[in-house]
Amino acid sequence: MDADQLTQRLTLTEEGLIPAIIQQHDTGEVLMMAWMTPATLAETLELGETVFWSRSRRERWHKGATSGNTQRVVDVQIDCDADVLLVAVDQGDGVACHTGARTCFGPLESLEDTPRQ
Amino acid sequence: MDADQLTQRLTLTEEGLIPAIIQQHDTGEVLMMAWMTPATLAETLELGETVFWSRSRRERWHKGATSGNTQRVVDVQIDCDADVLLVAVDQGDGVACHTGARTCFGPLESLEDTPRQ
Repeated sequence: MDADQLTQRLTLTEEGLIPAIIQQHDTGEVLMMAWMTPATLAETLELGETVFWSRSRRERWHKGATSGNTQRVVDVQIDCDADVLLVAVDQGDGVACHTGARTCFGPLESLEDTPRQ
Repeated sequence: MDADQLTQRLTLTEEGLIPAIIQQHDTGEVLMMAWMTPATLAETLELGETVFWSRSRRERWHKGATSGNTQRVVDVQIDCDADVLLVAVDQGDGVACHTGARTCFGPLESLEDTPRQ
């Protein structure tokens, strides 16, 4: 499917985005969640590596293009409402998180040390 | 943490929501993604079962209260930006999806049969 076909079939947010859950294909680890547009999903499918939309920078973001931590795409699934993607990847020996951690997720209790407002 | 403390520490959408990825704790299956408010997250932690916010019905939603397919909470994690939750649950022998399927996710190719616009 190309970007136009995906735009017709996906349920997008008002900003034209869809959340993508990124999971290590063999261990089941949920590595991160990021956002895609129909165009970056189409590019992800063609390239075989994850390409996202950075909401903060408002630009296409080929993950790992700078850091080397690309994610090879193994499988892409869609949920029953067509508004969430589940992408199985191989992160290899690399890390998913910009903090240098393997995954972006950690204990909820860590919030207690970091009031944000 | 109570709802006020969570509100201070979580990064919420403009609607005051945070996405929650729901994962079967032992198999690693990603079952669904839904939305929580600080209040439904606090209730989830206290009750030990998932409680969400239904965007379509605009109301609190204790999953399984009607269908019996409750999700026992095993662990809750937060991501590096404090804007995504990862909730490990035990779905038991039940199903996560309102379609009657075990998980809400299926092949991306299924979109080809269902143009939405």
